[in-house]
Amino acid sequence: MITEIAQLDIKPGMESEFEEAMKKAVPIFERARGCHGLDLRRSIEKPGHYWLFVAWDTVDDHLLGFRRSPDFQEWRKLVGHCFADSPDVTHADPILSFS
Amino acid sequence: MITEIAQLDIKPGMESEFEEAMKKAVPIFERARGCHGLDLRRSIEKPGHYWLFVAWDTVDDHLLGFRRSPDFQEWRKLVGHCFADSPDVTHADPILSFS
Repeated sequence: MITEIAQLDIKPGMESEFEEAMKKAVPIFERARGCHGLDLRRSIEKPGHYWLFVAWDTVDDHLLGFRRSPDFQEWRKLVGHCFADSPDVTHADPILSFS
Repeated sequence: MITEIAQLDIKPGMESEFEEAMKKAVPIFERARGCHGLDLRRSIEKPGHYWLFVAWDTVDDHLLGFRRSPDFQEWRKLVGHCFADSPDVTHADPILSFS
């Protein structure tokens, strides 16, 4: 399982609208093939900056499956107008963890 | 609970040494006051780049408690020589999640 790490800069004053839209978007990720969870976090130091972490089976599930699906367009329709810039998106493999 | 998000660039060729040192460092985080877990992830697109996510009760538990403790020095002693640059460290609040 890999993690998509997306950094999203939201237009000033649109933070609440973005968070509400993300709540509505949860089912899109719940039904996405290979998607195992999502965490949305908001920067403490820079409040218009958000971190979106999405667990996928593989990078291809994200980039080839989800990105090319109608549901990706659906997600962008819900939240895209809140973005100040293009999201910065990367992926990472797990190395170690405890909780 | 907040998340520390640290980005670590490791000197080329020192990735395995860094990962081994991080394994040794786990007890440091396990015993840190206010620390509830750690995830180390390695970038897929840029393999010398790591993401360290640490769950703390508060930002102060990280910056005032841990950073000023002898255990922080202990951690830097284990891993600091592997860093190519100063880590980029920030913090985020949870907004929504599912798994």
